[in-house]
Amino acid sequence: MMRKILVIGAGKSTSFLLDYLLKKADAEQLEITIGDINPSIIPAQITDHAHCTVITLDIFVETERKLAIANADLVISMLPARFHIKVAQDCVKLKKHLVTASYISPELLALNESVKKNNLVFMNEIGLDPGLDHMSAMQVIDRIRENGGEIILFESFCGGLVAPENDNNLWNYKFTWNPRNVVLAGQGGTAKFIQEGTYKYIPYHRLFRRTEFFEIEGYGRFEGYANRDSLNYREAYKLQDALTIYRGTMRRVGFSKAWNMFIELGVTDDSYTIENSENMSYREFINLFLPYSPTDSVELKLRHYLKLDQDDIRWDKLLELNIFDHKKIIGIPNATPAQALQKILEDSWTLKADEKDMIVMYHKFGYRLNGQEKQIDSKLVVTGENQTYTAMAKTVGLPVAIAALKILNGNITTPGVQIPITKEVYEPILEELKTYGINFKEYDVPYLGYNPNAVVN
Amino acid sequence: MMRKILVIGAGKSTSFLLDYLLKKADAEQLEITIGDINPSIIPAQITDHAHCTVITLDIFVETERKLAIANADLVISMLPARFHIKVAQDCVKLKKHLVTASYISPELLALNESVKKNNLVFMNEIGLDPGLDHMSAMQVIDRIRENGGEIILFESFCGGLVAPENDNNLWNYKFTWNPRNVVLAGQGGTAKFIQEGTYKYIPYHRLFRRTEFFEIEGYGRFEGYANRDSLNYREAYKLQDALTIYRGTMRRVGFSKAWNMFIELGVTDDSYTIENSENMSYREFINLFLPYSPTDSVELKLRHYLKLDQDDIRWDKLLELNIFDHKKIIGIPNATPAQALQKILEDSWTLKADEKDMIVMYHKFGYRLNGQEKQIDSKLVVTGENQTYTAMAKTVGLPVAIAALKILNGNITTPGVQIPITKEVYEPILEELKTYGINFKEYDVPYLGYNPNAVVN
Repeated sequence: MMRKILVIGAGKSTSFLLDYLLKKADAEQLEITIGDINPSIIPAQITDHAHCTVITLDIFVETERKLAIANADLVISMLPARFHIKVAQDCVKLKKHLVTASYISPELLALNESVKKNNLVFMNEIGLDPGLDHMSAMQVIDRIRENGGEIILFESFCGGLVAPENDNNLWNYKFTWNPRNVVLAGQGGTAKFIQEGTYKYIPYHRLFRRTEFFEIEGYGRFEGYANRDSLNYREAYKLQDALTIYRGTMRRVGFSKAWNMFIELGVTDDSYTIENSENMSYREFINLFLPYSPTDSVELKLRHYLKLDQDDIRWDKLLELNIFDHKKIIGIPNATPAQALQKILEDSWTLKADEKDMIVMYHKFGYRLNGQEKQIDSKLVVTGENQTYTAMAKTVGLPVAIAALKILNGNITTPGVQIPITKEVYEPILEELKTYGINFKEYDVPYLGYNPNAVVN
Repeated sequence: MMRKILVIGAGKSTSFLLDYLLKKADAEQLEITIGDINPSIIPAQITDHAHCTVITLDIFVETERKLAIANADLVISMLPARFHIKVAQDCVKLKKHLVTASYISPELLALNESVKKNNLVFMNEIGLDPGLDHMSAMQVIDRIRENGGEIILFESFCGGLVAPENDNNLWNYKFTWNPRNVVLAGQGGTAKFIQEGTYKYIPYHRLFRRTEFFEIEGYGRFEGYANRDSLNYREAYKLQDALTIYRGTMRRVGFSKAWNMFIELGVTDDSYTIENSENMSYREFINLFLPYSPTDSVELKLRHYLKLDQDDIRWDKLLELNIFDHKKIIGIPNATPAQALQKILEDSWTLKADEKDMIVMYHKFGYRLNGQEKQIDSKLVVTGENQTYTAMAKTVGLPVAIAALKILNGNITTPGVQIPITKEVYEPILEELKTYGINFKEYDVPYLGYNPNAVVN
C-alpha cells in the first residue's frame, strides 16, 4: 500500500528534499503531493515524476488545507515558520505526523499533550541550524556522558558562506540565504553567554568586535561572533553545569571587523525610514551618517569618523561596495537604513548563476573524564553543486526528508512536539547523512577552555 | 472676591512655584489649595500660610478629584505627565483653566476643540525644557522676522548641571534631577537633525562622540550632544525653511567622551536583567561586559577593550567612580545594567545637602537680513540657592506660576490646548522672569553656520 507525504511549500530549500523522496518513492512506495500557492515554479523533472502530484494550495483556505492534509499520512511543512500553526492544528485533528525545519513556537508547543495523546510525532528544528547542529552536538555529548565524562564546555558555530572557488571578493562573503537576516544579524537584544561560569554580555555595537577564531583543515581560518542567546538549549542539552556555553555565527576572518564599520555608522538600523531615499545616491546615503562639512569629502569624513588609515584593508572593502558612488541610486521609497544597505550589498554580494555556496559548522566539546580535562572538536563543511542544489538546501532538506521517511517507517516513534536531540532520532539520520557527504570530522585536541594552566602553557 | 488655584502635586519642583503664588496671595486675592497624596511632605512655612489650604488628594479617586477641581478657578498640575489626562478631562467638564509643565500628549491634544469651545486656556510645556526654551527662542525668532530677517539656523541646547562652586569631581557632573533619565539619555531611537539642508542621523553608540562646543561668558566651556528628534518643533516654530535645526543637551566639556565608555561597554542597557545582581560587586558587574580571562585583571581588560592609554583622563574618571571596587555591592535584585550603573553613579554624583545646581541654556539663531547672514547667540545661566530652592525648581516653577496668574488675570486669553510660543504668552512672562534673575544675554556674532566661506575665513 502506498504511503502519502504532503510537502507544503516548494521554495528554494526543497530541491534535495524532493529529490530524496522521489528517488525513494518506488522502493518505499511513496506518493508525494506538493502543495504550493504557486506550483508553476516547480521544475518539470519533479512534476513529471510518476509518484508526484502537484496541487495549488493556499493554506489560508481552510477547506483546501484540510482536504490536502486529510489525504496524507505525513505532512512536511516548508512554509515560513509563522504559517506552521494552522497546518499543525489540522495535523492533530486529522492524526497526521508533521515535520518542519523551524523553531518550535509557543503555540506549537501548546499542542504537545494532544500530539502525544494521538501518538503522533511532530518533529521540528530538523534542518541545518536548527537541526544538524542539535543532532551532531547531542551525538557527541551523549557519547562523552556514556563514557563517564562530564561536559564543561560547549561551543557551537555555524555559517552559510560562498564556496572557496567562488570566494573572490575582499569580504570573502556573498549572500547565500536571506540577505535581510544578514543585515539585521545581532540586532534585537544584547548577546548573552557563559564563559568559565561567568555570564558575559555583548552589546550590538561590540558584537562583531568580540570574535573567536577557528581552523578547518583544508579550508583555512574562520571567525565567529556570538548569537543573541547562547543559553537557549542549556536545559534541552542538560548543560546546566557546563562552565562555558557559547553559540555563534561563522564568517571568514576579517568580515566582522569590516562589518562593524556599518554598525558604527548606524546604517544597519531598521527602526526608522529615511527621507527621500528613493532618489538618493549611495554616496548621499552614507553621508547621512557623517558630520556635515562644506569642504571635506564624504571619503575623508568617513575615514576620520571610523579612524581608518589609508592602508587599512577595510577601506578597500568599502570601495569594493561602491558606497561612495554618486550615480548608483537606492531606488527604494521610504527605505530604512538597513534596507538601503541591503540594496548596496546585493549589488556586490549576489551569487552568480554558476557560483556555489558552502556551509560550515564547528563544535567544541570540553569535558572532564577520570580527573582529566579533554576536548573534542567536531567540524563539517558542505559545498553546494549549483544554485539549485545548494549546500543550504542539502543540509536543510535532507535531514527533513530522512526524518519524514523514518517516522513513516516506524524507526522514529516517540510521540510529541520535539526537536532531534534523542538518540532514536539523531543516530539513524546522521548515519544516513554520511552517505550524502554530510560527515562531521572529529579531532581530539588539548582542552584549552579558558583555564589558567592552559593559557600559561 | 478671592480667586482659587488648585496645585496638584507638591513634589520637589514646586518650591518657587508655591512661594510665588503665596507671596502674591494677599495683593492678588488668591486662595491656594495644594492637593497631594502625601501632604505631610509640605513644609510648615507653606501649610501655615493664611492663604493656603492643604488637602489629601488621590487623583485616582474620582469624587475627590472632581470636588477639588470644582472648587478651583484654575488648576496647576505638577503630577508626572502620564497622570494629567484625568485632571484635564475634569477641567473641560468643570470649565477650569489648566497649566502644566509637561509635553502635550495625544490624549490631551484631543481635548483641544472642547477647550476652545469653553474658552479655556490649557497651557502646557511651560517649565524649563520644555517651556523657557520655547519662550526665549520664539521671542528672538519673532523679532528677527519682524525686522525682515529669515531664519536659516536654529540650535538650542539646555542642561542641568552642578553649580561651579560645587563642581568638584572629574566628570564635572552631579545628579540634579532624575538620575534614571541621565543614565538612559539618548536611548530609544536614532538622533535626527538637519545641518545645512541635509538630514543627519546619529546612532546611540555614537551620540556622545558627536558634540558641539559652547562658551558662556564667566562660566567657561560646555559641550552638547543631540536630542533624539531635533525636528519636533519645526512646524510650531515655522522653521520649515531653516537649513539647520539642532537641539541637544549640555554638559561640561569631557563628560560625553567619558560617558561613551559606558555605552561602549553596554552598561547603560535597560532592556534585560542581570543574573545574581543583588550580591554582585561593582567589579563583578563591570566584568560582565569584558571578555573572560583567567589571568588578566578587570582593569587591564577594560583598558584594552576601550583602548585607554595609562594617562587618559577617562581612566581617572572611572577610578573616581570606584567601578573596580570588589566590596561595594549593587544590592538590587534583578537589576538591569542601567539600574546597576545608576546605583554606582549615585554613590559619587549625589548632591550634598549644602550643594547647589545650575541650569544652562544656549540658543543660536542664524538669519539672513538684507542679503547678509547674521547670528544671535542667546545664553542663560541660573544657579540654585540650596537643595530646596534649586535652579531647576526656579526655572520650572516660576514660568508655571506666572502663567497661571496671568491667565487668571486675563492677560493670557487665547483659548486652546497650547504651548508658550505666542507673543501674548512669552512677552509678559519673560519680562517678569527677569525680575527673578532669569535673564537671557544676547550676543551678535558672525554667522558661522556651516557655510564654506565662514569656514575658509
